[in-house]
Order: sequence, then C-alpha cells, then structure tokens
Amino acid sequence: MSIKFKNLTDLDKAYIAGFFDGDGSIVVQIVKDNTRVYKHYVRISLVFYQKSKHHWFIIWLSKVFAPYGYITKRSSGMSEFTIVAKTPVKEVLNILHPYLKIKKPLCNLVLNIITDLETIQTEADFLKVCQKVDKVAEYTYSKTRTITSETVALNLKLPVETSF
Amino acid sequence: MSIKFKNLTDLDKAYIAGFFDGDGSIVVQIVKDNTRVYKHYVRISLVFYQKSKHHWFIIWLSKVFAPYGYITKRSSGMSEFTIVAKTPVKEVLNILHPYLKIKKPLCNLVLNIITDLETIQTEADFLKVCQKVDKVAEYTYSKTRTITSETVALNLKLPVETSF
Repeated sequence: MSIKFKNLTDLDKAYIAGFFDGDGSIVVQIVKDNTRVYKHYVRISLVFYQKSKHHWFIIWLSKVFAPYGYITKRSSGMSEFTIVAKTPVKEVLNILHPYLKIKKPLCNLVLNIITDLETIQTEADFLKVCQKVDKVAEYTYSKTRTITSETVALNLKLPVETSF
Repeated sequence: MSIKFKNLTDLDKAYIAGFFDGDGSIVVQIVKDNTRVYKHYVRISLVFYQKSKHHWFIIWLSKVFAPYGYITKRSSGMSEFTIVAKTPVKEVLNILHPYLKIKKPLCNLVLNIITDLETIQTEADFLKVCQKVDKVAEYTYSKTRTITSETVALNLKLPVETSF
C-alpha cells in the first residue's frame, strides 16, 4: 500500500469512491507503438468528470492526488481530472478499492492487468494481458476500440511494414 | 436528526454523498394544483441515476433508504431511485449534508426551502418560498421550468378561470 495521500481520511476515500462510481471512468486501451517490444502497449487511465462550473472540485481532486494527474478544461463546458500510467493508477485504485461498489469488479480486473503488465516476459504473456483488456470493454461499453488482442496477435505474427 | 437509517455507517453516508454529487439530482418544482390553498405546491425530490445494468445498485439504495423512495427502470436503459416529499427529502439531505461537496450549497438552499414550507402562513410567505425555488434553477440549470414565482404571483392576483 502507498504511503502517499496519507492525509486522506477514510471518509474522503469513501466519498471519492462514490463520486467515481457515479461519474468516473477507467479507460484501458491497447495503443500501437512500434518502438515497444510487442509493438503495442497498454495505456490505463482514471478520469473524473465534472461541469466546469464546479472546476474547483476538479482542482480539489488534483490536490488530493498530487503529484499525480492533470486537469483538462474542455470547450464543451466539462472539466476532467485524469491519472495516467500503471503506478499512479494502481495506487489510486488501491485506495478506492475498499469503498467502490459499482466499479469494484472492473477495479479488480484492472489491478490484475497492472500486476500482469509488471511481469510480462514473453509475447504470449503480452497477448494474455491484451485478452484481459478485451474483457474491460465488456464493463465499459467502449464503442471506439480499434485495437483488440486479435489485432495485436495478427500484428505480432505478421509485422506491418511501411507501404510505398 | 432522524433515528432512521441507523445502520448506515458514516462511510456509507460519505460514499452515497459522493455518488449523489456525481450522479444525483435535487429537483424542486412549483406545481399547479387548484385544490391547494395557494393554487400551487412545491414538489421536492432527490433522484439517483444508474445504468440498468447496475440495477442492483439502485435496489441497494432503496434498501438503504427504506421505507422511502421508489425505483423506476426506463426503456432507455437507465434506472432511477427517487425520494419525493418534504419529510423524506429532509431526512436524507440531513444525512448526506456533512459529506456533500458539489451539491452542498444547493442542499442548504433546499433544506431552507423545506423549513420555510413548514411555516407558511400567508400568500406572501408562499411567494417568498417560490422565489427561493427560482434560485434553485440557477444551481440545476433546469431548462424545462414553466412555473416560476412570477407565474404564481400572477395566478394568485388574477386567478385563472376555466375558459369556455
């Protein structure tokens, strides 16, 4: 368990977990990147949403989770606080986990994916993780996914070459 | 303070407040009703929303707040848990109040309106409450309001008659 966020009370954690269950999301994507060993990597992020009218709340969240995360203020009138990358996401999920209700099964799956990512040694290991990422889509109804474990498998067996 | 919900822990209250801040709403409406002394009444409700996929969560909320509230399952795929009427809304808001962040100012205003409603003695008192209801719209961005304090004022001075 993290020694960070030690000023965060259990009540704060429960509150944030409730807020996140209602208005947050866990985004897990397979991203194409030819500089990586397996030509892809898994990007994991947590996003908290709120109307920019309550931008102060997004700032409060960013202070709570400092130094992690960044703030986005969209022209749509929405503000977002996003935490990206395995280590920060893992620490924050570990903090929220005991209090989550709706997103607890998804949280378990994502923590499991992060553990797997930390121990990948072979292509087969990476593919297995990608299959778990496919399962995340079942929780999150993602409609914009383009890269699945199948894409990765095809890519690893038949490397895509630059076409002329 | 209510003796109800005594099994609800402070952590549960904080969690629900967080969820409500993210995905809940306080609806305050002036409703036309010629059977009432002031030809209108103020209807106050709390609504919790969640995808019907997590309908179990809505059922959990209904158990937490039993005997208050009712469940709606919409064809849109959304489920709702709604608590209507002054006394139940007051009790639930009093429980959530210490933990609310985003909706705390609105919660204060609505609790204030409920107190006022309990002590109305004159038309002027009722109008004053309706003016506070107008202020609620500033918090909730309600776009569907048709009856405002102005409508009520006009109605009380110039009673609308059934037209032939």
